[in-house]
Formats: sequence, C-alpha cells, structure tokens
Amino acid sequence: MATILAVDVGGTQIRVAAYQNGSAEPTNINKVATRGEGSVSDRILATIRKTWPIAGNVDKIVIALPGPLDPAQGIIFSAPNLPEWKNYAIGPEIEQVFGVRTLIGNDANLAALGEWKYGSGIGHNDLAYFTVSTGIGSGIISGGNLIVGRYGLAGEIGHILLEPNGPPCSCGQRGHVESFCSGLSIVKFAKQQISHGRKSSLANLADFSAKDLSQAAQQGDALSREAVERAGRYLGYAMVSVVHTFNPSILIFGGGVSQNGDLLFDPIRETLQDQVMDPTYIKDLIITSASLGDNAGLMGAHALGLLPDQ
Amino acid sequence: MATILAVDVGGTQIRVAAYQNGSAEPTNINKVATRGEGSVSDRILATIRKTWPIAGNVDKIVIALPGPLDPAQGIIFSAPNLPEWKNYAIGPEIEQVFGVRTLIGNDANLAALGEWKYGSGIGHNDLAYFTVSTGIGSGIISGGNLIVGRYGLAGEIGHILLEPNGPPCSCGQRGHVESFCSGLSIVKFAKQQISHGRKSSLANLADFSAKDLSQAAQQGDALSREAVERAGRYLGYAMVSVVHTFNPSILIFGGGVSQNGDLLFDPIRETLQDQVMDPTYIKDLIITSASLGDNAGLMGAHALGLLPDQ
Repeated sequence: MATILAVDVGGTQIRVAAYQNGSAEPTNINKVATRGEGSVSDRILATIRKTWPIAGNVDKIVIALPGPLDPAQGIIFSAPNLPEWKNYAIGPEIEQVFGVRTLIGNDANLAALGEWKYGSGIGHNDLAYFTVSTGIGSGIISGGNLIVGRYGLAGEIGHILLEPNGPPCSCGQRGHVESFCSGLSIVKFAKQQISHGRKSSLANLADFSAKDLSQAAQQGDALSREAVERAGRYLGYAMVSVVHTFNPSILIFGGGVSQNGDLLFDPIRETLQDQVMDPTYIKDLIITSASLGDNAGLMGAHALGLLPDQ
Repeated sequence: MATILAVDVGGTQIRVAAYQNGSAEPTNINKVATRGEGSVSDRILATIRKTWPIAGNVDKIVIALPGPLDPAQGIIFSAPNLPEWKNYAIGPEIEQVFGVRTLIGNDANLAALGEWKYGSGIGHNDLAYFTVSTGIGSGIISGGNLIVGRYGLAGEIGHILLEPNGPPCSCGQRGHVESFCSGLSIVKFAKQQISHGRKSSLANLADFSAKDLSQAAQQGDALSREAVERAGRYLGYAMVSVVHTFNPSILIFGGGVSQNGDLLFDPIRETLQDQVMDPTYIKDLIITSASLGDNAGLMGAHALGLLPDQ
C-alpha cells in the first residue's frame, strides 16, 4: 500500500500521521513534545520511525515547519520557537536517513493546501488562508497553484505594510498587518487603552491574554469588543489589498483570534464593501472560518504529498 | 504556416501584428487610431482583416485591452478611455466573426507576460511588472503562472492600500499606491507644494505634466527631484508588500514615470533595504526598467497565444 507520512512540527508538539492510498483519515498517528530529551530533529526521527508502517512502502515524507523555509532545497531558515535551527537542511537530512523523498513546507502554506483539499476551501482554486493567532500566518492558492516565490518566502500577508512607520511588528519592522491584528497586538491595544484610563472588565487583572479578551468581549465588555473590531477593520484593510492582488473566491480565517466570529468578520466585510475599487471583487466572495483546526498542517502536508512532483 | 494575430487596443491606437511560427518579429503590422469612423470594435475588426495572412491559417487571435476583464468569458468590464464598453463580450464577438479561437487579456498582465518571455524578465519565473504612467498597471508571474484570479481582476498592485484614509485615488477609493506614485499624483504633490509657496522652475508654468516635472528634476529642480523621490519611497513601501507576498526575483518598471531612472529606483531600493523583514527577500533581487516599450502589449498577446490553452 502507498503511504505518505505527514509530519507537523509545532512549537509544543511534533505529530506524525500515516495516510494510505489518498485517504483523508490517517491509519496511525503519534505525537511527542517538541522539547525533551535529545535534539528536535532526533525527536522527529524517532516519531517517524514509530509511525512507519509495518508492511508497505512509504512514498514520501512531508514536513510542515513553523518558519520561513526554501521548499526547493529543503532548508528551514529559522523558526521563532526553535532557535537552534538556522539555515538547517532538515529535508535532505530526513531524506538521507529514510531513503524516501522528503518535502518540507511552511505550516501556514500547508494549512492553506489542507483547507483547499479537505476543509473550508474545497472547490476554490483562488483562495487565501490566514491563521490569526499570537502572530499572523497565511498561505495563498492562485489559479490552483500554491504561491511560494523564488526562495519559498511568499504568502506573508501578515507582513504587508498597512501604515508606514506604524506600530512595531514582531518581525522587527513597523506598520505591518500583524502589528494591528495579531492576538498580541489586540492585547497591547487594550492594555494601552486601560492605561489611559478606559474602563474594562480586564482592568483589574494583573495580566490577560487574547483569549481572556475574547471572553470579555463575548460577555459584553465594551473595550474588548472595540479591540476585536479594530483588529477586524485593519484585517479588512489588508483584505482590500489581498482581493485587488489575487481576486480570490474565498477568504478563510483560522487561529484563536478568528474564534471571535462575526465580531471580527463583520468589520472585515464592512471594510471590504466600503473600500474595494469595484464590487466584482466581492461578488460572491466567501469569508469563513477554517474547518481543520489543529489538523490543518498534517492534512496540508498530506495534500502536498499527493500533488505531482514539481 | 501557423499564425497568431496579436491585437493591442490602446487609448489612442489600435495595433494588430501577425506573428508566424513563434518568431518574436511580426511579419506584418497595422495600426489605426482608436477613435474615428465607426465603432471601436468595427475598427478592430477592420484592422484584423487588413493584417490577415494571405496564405496560411490563423491559430489564435489574442487581444490586449486597457481595462478590467474576465479572460475566461472574454468580457471586458470597463475601459477608462472607452466608456461605451461596459461588460462587453468582445472575445466571443471576434471569435464568431473570424471562426478562430480568441483570447483577451488585461494590457498590464500581457505586458508582464511580454517582458517575461521577450524582455527584461527572461528566465525569471517569479516576476512583478509595473507600468507607472498616468495611472499604475501591474502584472505578476508567480512560479511561472500569470496571476489572474477568479474573475481575472488580480494583479492590481497599484490599488493595494498604503494608507487608510490617504489621498484620493483615481479608482474612487483612498490611500492606494497609485494615489502616491502615479504621474498624476506626482504632479499633484508638486502643485500643492508650489501653492504652499515652495520655489520651483515649474512654478511659473500655467500647467505642467509628469514629463515636464521629470525634465525639471533632471535639470536639478529641487522640488521636482523631491516629488519623484517621494513617489519612489512610496513605491518602495508597496514593493515591501510585493516581496513579502510574492518573493519575486525581479521587479520590472515601465511607463513614463519609470524613465526617471535611479532618481526613482534608488528610493525604492533604499526603502526595501530598510523595511523587508528578512534580507533573503532582497538577495539578488533585480530592480530594472522594462525593455519592450510600446510593444509590450503586442508581444505579451503573442506570448499568451503561444501558451498551452488553460
């Protein structure tokens, strides 16, 4: 039987799933904490071995990785949560150990592929996917092709410029989408407002997270609602540029911040309606939630493995 | 002999060229003013007839058109200089008249294809092309595919948002790249500065064009130089978003404003250097002028005709 081993390397967990004959359901899945005894790549190797099918061939190993990388060379340039990985040729290493063709992909790009093949984006060949969480990741399918660019660094919509000399971004630059719309930025905005004397149910907490803020918003806290709506408005500005650039038929939002639902989506829709240069850009445009959750990376890795080799 | 008829419909001229057997040199070329006796489409039909090869078959007719359009349906939605065209099915009309497969494409997208196949972008499969003129057009090749989107409206980098609630844009919205960097916007900025009392060799003219301003800049006029450099800086901001989105290997600039050369390109380069989130984005990135000039549309139409049918 033909097997694809999909590997998802996250900041906290490494997961490996075996998919057989194109089935969307894995026959076997194993996980291990990313941190622990041995190096991260040793722990990946061990988890792949554990998941290796007893009978049958493995056609490909496909690895979703949390950082900028060159899929052509199999090199990850850096990973914010794995500082020991700098220009690390993980693809060739794993290919050599197992003697099996090994592909790597950025986790947001693979999540986009996963949502396209198995999730909210089925049937949409022009699709933009965003994970709005601590930071913002994204992946774009245009005309049925994943946008990767020359060195594999394309699709970073979280780092398009919304305001020259705007607020600092986690990447070290300023005014990017992420600096207005990520979970961290939403919390930062609320904290600034509280420090300026705004009332909020969050004001008495020593610290709070984006999740706390979402809960407060759901319970009617005005400042928390405003903070989420503001992020939605800025995401809407980013989506104006996305639709003018890619003219997609669907925008898919995953990640914790997207669980604010319409409180986030309504200002995105309103900003798009107000600001697109032609209504055709938003004709039948679907704005929706991701549906694969934590499995998007694994399923996207599987989807990449099923594509014909480039 | 296999012939492709390439048609370029501009605001002032319609040109039709016959290309045989994939040669980049046309065997025959005819032009007519866009305005005159009869409708624009009658004038296109007549010019195609005039260019029709005496012997041999025409494989395809490919038409470059100056406005947003749906290449799949052959419909042009609108053309700023041809107000009589509203949702006009020009592709099917021409296909029916001549009984030959007819494709249409946006002129900036086809110019991008032309520069890719025959011009400054040869060998670059990740390419962004911009024509900076009265307005700003653009076309993107990513992974060897022209980005067109669901309804063919993609690639409008001139209308990505640089500053929410920024200056008015020709499209009716605000704060787009075009509202800072087009020839019209450069002239507008200089006029505003002069009305605020700034000195300039242009100050005594009743009116002046972007071309006049470029000449004044070349002759050392400080305000004119500043106006061009400012446009370059804002184009640089847009390029930050373009490289984060597409990770291209080359940026190609055509159109009158691009003839300012390094006065425009240097601030683009500096802004990119300052503001990309990782230096890999600009590693070996080429920033250069278009090389096909007025022939980009025709040659791009020819290039589209040579691609396998989608």
